[in-house]
Amino acid sequence: MSSEADTLPRGGALPTSEYLTQLIAVIRAEDTHGSWDGKPDAEILADFIVTKEERREIPIICDPDPDVLWRVERFYDAVALLLERRTGAQAAQMSRITHEGFGRIVLISGRLVVLSKHVRDIHRFGFETFARLAETGEQLTADAADMVARFPEAARA
Amino acid sequence: MSSEADTLPRGGALPTSEYLTQLIAVIRAEDTHGSWDGKPDAEILADFIVTKEERREIPIICDPDPDVLWRVERFYDAVALLLERRTGAQAAQMSRITHEGFGRIVLISGRLVVLSKHVRDIHRFGFETFARLAETGEQLTADAADMVARFPEAARA
Repeated sequence: MSSEADTLPRGGALPTSEYLTQLIAVIRAEDTHGSWDGKPDAEILADFIVTKEERREIPIICDPDPDVLWRVERFYDAVALLLERRTGAQAAQMSRITHEGFGRIVLISGRLVVLSKHVRDIHRFGFETFARLAETGEQLTADAADMVARFPEAARA
Repeated sequence: MSSEADTLPRGGALPTSEYLTQLIAVIRAEDTHGSWDGKPDAEILADFIVTKEERREIPIICDPDPDVLWRVERFYDAVALLLERRTGAQAAQMSRITHEGFGRIVLISGRLVVLSKHVRDIHRFGFETFARLAETGEQLTADAADMVARFPEAARA
């Protein structure tokens, strides 16, 4: 029999995930002309998928592609918005990424750094599967929510 | 009599200030070849002085001058280092400044945002006098130290 995997979209099946729903909403919100209205969700997220083979092929010697940096921002925007829906804490994103592709990304709520990630090889930002993308976004949101619970006053300051 | 002001360097007299001492040290530390060894402190800080008349002349329609952005970073580096000497809290600087010259600068210690400044017209970054520069740096350092005292656990997290 022809395996099911052959018919699955790249990145595997799209799991049900509050994080993915949020990320898709963030991206569709930028589509002001409605040109992606007919695009299925898996296609909207397609560029977040980078397989092991593709990862190896991506050079890390040039400046990171602006499209990659755009996806990194949307990825953390979705964490911030889901965090707000779950805890009420509004978080702003700041990042410092060198042209060599490493740096730091933070989400700040009030006086609290609710998320802090040191990144490298940002050129290769992506996930093997949609399931992995969903899991990572959910985990970061949960960690940020824990931080808000731990320092609620700093988050409100 | 010839007024004393005529003989004062631009920016007025250099006051005694722990902040200015720190800022001068930060800048001299970048002079790896010792080419500024003979330069007096007032000359090292000369570009931090922008008079009212000069401010008006600086256009804010082009991208901010990289030298201005460099000075802004040194200014906040000195705040971070003085804060560390006074409280032990090590702070890292992050900034997000658009090419239109507005944005946000933060100093982060542990999980705490010890300083957060929204800036605009960064093209015109500078101070009327050395006294004003010293005062501003001292005030920001004091505010950051207050924040560390208010949320010591977040600053250590």
